[in-house]
Amino acid sequence: MRVLGIDPGLRNLGWGVIRVDGSRLSHLGNGVCQGLGDTLAERLLSLFRQLSAVVEEFRPEAAAVEQVFVNRDGAGTLKLGQARGIALLVPAAAGLTVGEYAPNTIKKTVVGVGHAQKQQVMHMVRLQLPGVELAGPDAADALAIAICHAQHLGSASALARAVKVAGARR
Amino acid sequence: MRVLGIDPGLRNLGWGVIRVDGSRLSHLGNGVCQGLGDTLAERLLSLFRQLSAVVEEFRPEAAAVEQVFVNRDGAGTLKLGQARGIALLVPAAAGLTVGEYAPNTIKKTVVGVGHAQKQQVMHMVRLQLPGVELAGPDAADALAIAICHAQHLGSASALARAVKVAGARR
Repeated sequence: MRVLGIDPGLRNLGWGVIRVDGSRLSHLGNGVCQGLGDTLAERLLSLFRQLSAVVEEFRPEAAAVEQVFVNRDGAGTLKLGQARGIALLVPAAAGLTVGEYAPNTIKKTVVGVGHAQKQQVMHMVRLQLPGVELAGPDAADALAIAICHAQHLGSASALARAVKVAGARR
Repeated sequence: MRVLGIDPGLRNLGWGVIRVDGSRLSHLGNGVCQGLGDTLAERLLSLFRQLSAVVEEFRPEAAAVEQVFVNRDGAGTLKLGQARGIALLVPAAAGLTVGEYAPNTIKKTVVGVGHAQKQQVMHMVRLQLPGVELAGPDAADALAIAICHAQHLGSASALARAVKVAGARR
């Protein structure tokens, strides 16, 4: 199964695709879409087109987007929200259900602690995806989101299998 | 010229299309797109599809979206931002430049005062677009945005003509 992770942002929107084979993970691609243009609408369209091209190239079967930390900077939250709308739309338009994870959940899953630094996330992403070349911290975050989603999907399907087996044994 | 106005919202996204013929305005259509679905991604996709259908049906040549009032409710701002991302994307994807106006500018242009109530906006929209049947307050707001954009585009083109005439007379 191919899993797409997306770290939303208006200037830099990180993406990463991994392959999940049982409990084995491997890297397929990562990068950063840049919101280019003079107006906000143009920048969002630019993100939409680049991210759509990624989905078309890698044809992921699952996707997840980082939840946005809402702070007191309303203007920043609004900007990020607009970019996040595109990040959620593109995989949904490709027929994927889109998982959402809080930053702390992602860090806890990938690094083991909820308050990990960016460097730790990059380190753990490199460890879990041997040979990966990271396009930058936003792309590393996106791969971490994909890893987190893969592990949650794995636990969910293991649980579903266990329930099925338990049911069959009754 | 056909002008599309959009009042962004995640539950109810108002839209309105008017025809501008010199200083004469007429109503072409208005309605409300509803963000339907169990997940945020599905709701955004639902808005995207409905709004894209409106653009396809009416083929507007200009569009404008209301600027969002940023308040202390970060979660609300984020939700609205995500819907607004879709509202900006759809006309941009159709090749339109997208104007943005603050709520007060829209009210001032349409009603004459910046702090008009919803009822006043609906009343003035009905006055300026005789025979219009409003799909609701969000659709009325969207028509007000289209009227505001038409007037600003009109002033801009009148100004451009005046500058051209002044230049030719030199």
